[in-house]
Amino acid sequence: MTVYNKVNDEFINKLSESVEGKVFTADQINEDFSHDEMPIYGSYQPDVLVAAKSTEDVSKILKLCNEYKIPVLARGAGSGLVGSGVAINGGVMIDMQGMNKILEYDLDNLVVRVQPGVYLHDLAEDCLTKGYMYPPDPGEKFATLGGNVSTNAGGMRAVKYGTTRDYVRAMEVVLPTGEITRFGAVVSKTSTGYSLKDLMVGSEGTLGIITELTLKIVPQAKHTISLIVPFESLDECIATVPVLFRANLKPQAIEFMERKIILASEKYIGKETFPKNIEGTDVNAYLLITFDGDNEDEIDVLMEQAAELLVENGAIDVLVADTPSAIKDAWAARSSFLEAINSQYKLIDECDVVVPINKIAPFINFVNEIGEKYDFDVQSFGHAGDGNLHIYTVSNDEDKLDEFNKQVHEFMEEIYAKAYEFGGQLSGEHGVGHGKLKYLKEYEGQLNTDLMRGIKKVFDPNMILNPGKVVSAE
Amino acid sequence: MTVYNKVNDEFINKLSESVEGKVFTADQINEDFSHDEMPIYGSYQPDVLVAAKSTEDVSKILKLCNEYKIPVLARGAGSGLVGSGVAINGGVMIDMQGMNKILEYDLDNLVVRVQPGVYLHDLAEDCLTKGYMYPPDPGEKFATLGGNVSTNAGGMRAVKYGTTRDYVRAMEVVLPTGEITRFGAVVSKTSTGYSLKDLMVGSEGTLGIITELTLKIVPQAKHTISLIVPFESLDECIATVPVLFRANLKPQAIEFMERKIILASEKYIGKETFPKNIEGTDVNAYLLITFDGDNEDEIDVLMEQAAELLVENGAIDVLVADTPSAIKDAWAARSSFLEAINSQYKLIDECDVVVPINKIAPFINFVNEIGEKYDFDVQSFGHAGDGNLHIYTVSNDEDKLDEFNKQVHEFMEEIYAKAYEFGGQLSGEHGVGHGKLKYLKEYEGQLNTDLMRGIKKVFDPNMILNPGKVVSAE
Repeated sequence: MTVYNKVNDEFINKLSESVEGKVFTADQINEDFSHDEMPIYGSYQPDVLVAAKSTEDVSKILKLCNEYKIPVLARGAGSGLVGSGVAINGGVMIDMQGMNKILEYDLDNLVVRVQPGVYLHDLAEDCLTKGYMYPPDPGEKFATLGGNVSTNAGGMRAVKYGTTRDYVRAMEVVLPTGEITRFGAVVSKTSTGYSLKDLMVGSEGTLGIITELTLKIVPQAKHTISLIVPFESLDECIATVPVLFRANLKPQAIEFMERKIILASEKYIGKETFPKNIEGTDVNAYLLITFDGDNEDEIDVLMEQAAELLVENGAIDVLVADTPSAIKDAWAARSSFLEAINSQYKLIDECDVVVPINKIAPFINFVNEIGEKYDFDVQSFGHAGDGNLHIYTVSNDEDKLDEFNKQVHEFMEEIYAKAYEFGGQLSGEHGVGHGKLKYLKEYEGQLNTDLMRGIKKVFDPNMILNPGKVVSAE
Repeated sequence: MTVYNKVNDEFINKLSESVEGKVFTADQINEDFSHDEMPIYGSYQPDVLVAAKSTEDVSKILKLCNEYKIPVLARGAGSGLVGSGVAINGGVMIDMQGMNKILEYDLDNLVVRVQPGVYLHDLAEDCLTKGYMYPPDPGEKFATLGGNVSTNAGGMRAVKYGTTRDYVRAMEVVLPTGEITRFGAVVSKTSTGYSLKDLMVGSEGTLGIITELTLKIVPQAKHTISLIVPFESLDECIATVPVLFRANLKPQAIEFMERKIILASEKYIGKETFPKNIEGTDVNAYLLITFDGDNEDEIDVLMEQAAELLVENGAIDVLVADTPSAIKDAWAARSSFLEAINSQYKLIDECDVVVPINKIAPFINFVNEIGEKYDFDVQSFGHAGDGNLHIYTVSNDEDKLDEFNKQVHEFMEEIYAKAYEFGGQLSGEHGVGHGKLKYLKEYEGQLNTDLMRGIKKVFDPNMILNPGKVVSAE
């Protein structure tokens, strides 16, 4: 078990003297920094918060923490869902949100260089003004890009465009020792030793702190169209997804949703867009599909091919949204799932398991079936195009927190076991953090988690950087 | 410095008793196994060659080698260019070519499960018979897929489809201790701890031996068209490449070539397809571009847009190849560059440096300029779409091998330095092996190579697996 030192006045003085960014302690630190968007994993206040201004700040902080053996972590917008950006051991938290400059576009190589504290929203918008697109599109637009890279964030458009990993060309990294280095290059193709860059992507701030990113961008698709596709059953709904892929229709996004969550979300936003009954047939599941392309003809061809295949394979109808406001309406309910859940329930836990796409229906059916045994409610939705499923366990029995946690643990054990049986994995895009760490060894195996621990120690011999996340403290 | 034991009779007996595959020693081993396709890096005969039949064979061999501290490596088709698959420390070589079954297609998830000894050519052909495509397309079609993954092989179509890394979903791996594990899953999206799978891709057989692969496939593009585009100067030629990307024309391949190598290659194949002079203007550089798509209309639109942009930006002409035989002819010269070089010269060395695409022209101009200082000839060609350049140093002065090697080393130092100055890297697709190892620390830095060494030791505490490749022997 690693023993860390406590922050003392000498340390704080040294820190304050050496960094450019502002240093906050104790009561000066806003309570928001004590948790992320999944407060059920606990509240942990850092002892010191530094609003970093530069790579040099980050380097000096890490050097000092390494010398004093004080735990330290970087935090973006705090929008994570597994507690990766929470100071569970106290110590120093580095707020990266001040390092938020879009530094330089290189339109010959189609890359942009940014600081890690830039919000996804801001880069996405800025690219569009130039006629380009930054494709990764996770639900939370006010996450930082550093956070997106650290979890290999996926999002809606991963189906066509891939995940954040596919857009990271290079990065500047401060190692836990304070040393500054670079991984990767502007180039799209490399075979120059082990891919340290790919090791950093998805490592949840445990191997080094990213202080600059070079990200790939693409020309903006000029047209999009969305389809709302109602089905009588979830099985029929999910079964159409491989059909669309095999026909090479390249959807930008394919989300599925069950009746229950649409009802809850439409109630929350106060607007009904999804049909509930069509000519006497109850709708129990939906696909929400978007196509994008460079011209309307291309999109129309895709849409017609898709509509034909969908109806042939059991869709009750195909509703087309082809204007910006209709597309916005079609996505409004989907975009509000999380808020709808947050507004309805006091106790919320979740997982974002990923399964092969042809296993989504049996998996969700299994989840619904075992969900009956538990006191909490289960709300599920997810990315039908990549098998990444968001399964929420929710309750309002605030006074039964321990029982809720116990039952959720049993439930998660059951569903993770089923996901692995189906060839899936623990997390598609949220990561492991400390919230899911207890499951990692069980499902990824001792051998793989031992390798991860070994790698962690190579980067961080004193285990000071974001301890207790991804790799257990032991 | 790690000290290895010598193979003795006891070891060979134990090995022969425990594995299913055939065991060869000393003179029974064909001389071909002593080098790869770059014999200038030396000839090293393994002491033992085992033709592995199964994962269990590989596991038993590694367990035994680890116990006896005997160096061991896996070898595919031996088509590498940096000596990764050569037994520079003697010991045991595992021939993986017998593990060559295409195991199972899963067309719901668009993946195929294969053994690592399957040749790229065989998987590519097999996919096509089913209407699918395995996109990675390195020049050497009779490389094994295990080898392709181990070097993150790129190839012609990387511009549109990405490199081998983008097609690896999961793998079974035998660790140097003999333990068997799996990295990754069938799913397209994952954030489940450090990406051990991505660490394996491009690690050149130094971290573990891949015994099974799950690879992504895509629906086959139904139509292709190629353009031969002549330019008066290399600068004009390369300057058009970003223009095509910004117009979102998504070429499948863009190769560039200078006049000199076209002349040599056309002489070798005995057929002239590339124009040398157009209405009095000498052609000094060419682009060879392919577009693919699902229907002819789509391709025609792309081709017309491209032709217009190319001529606007300095192309002398645009020659269209739109029948299979015309496309084959257009690519024949390009496909024969290596053979043409091999047939002409006795001493050959090369590098496959990668630079940002807008630096290709200044880089090649630099290479041509400094090439003048040396006794050898320089032949260059490369992937204009991704900046990956193949630069050959060639000579027929067989009796001046030492001088050739000395001059090549100086030349490589100059061009690697320039590549890094331009934001590039050492290798785009061939890897480091032992042939390029001496340059890795210099250009990737002590810090990064120390991290690589640390990672190597986590996987391979006794440093028995493919020692002296990627990570230096100390």
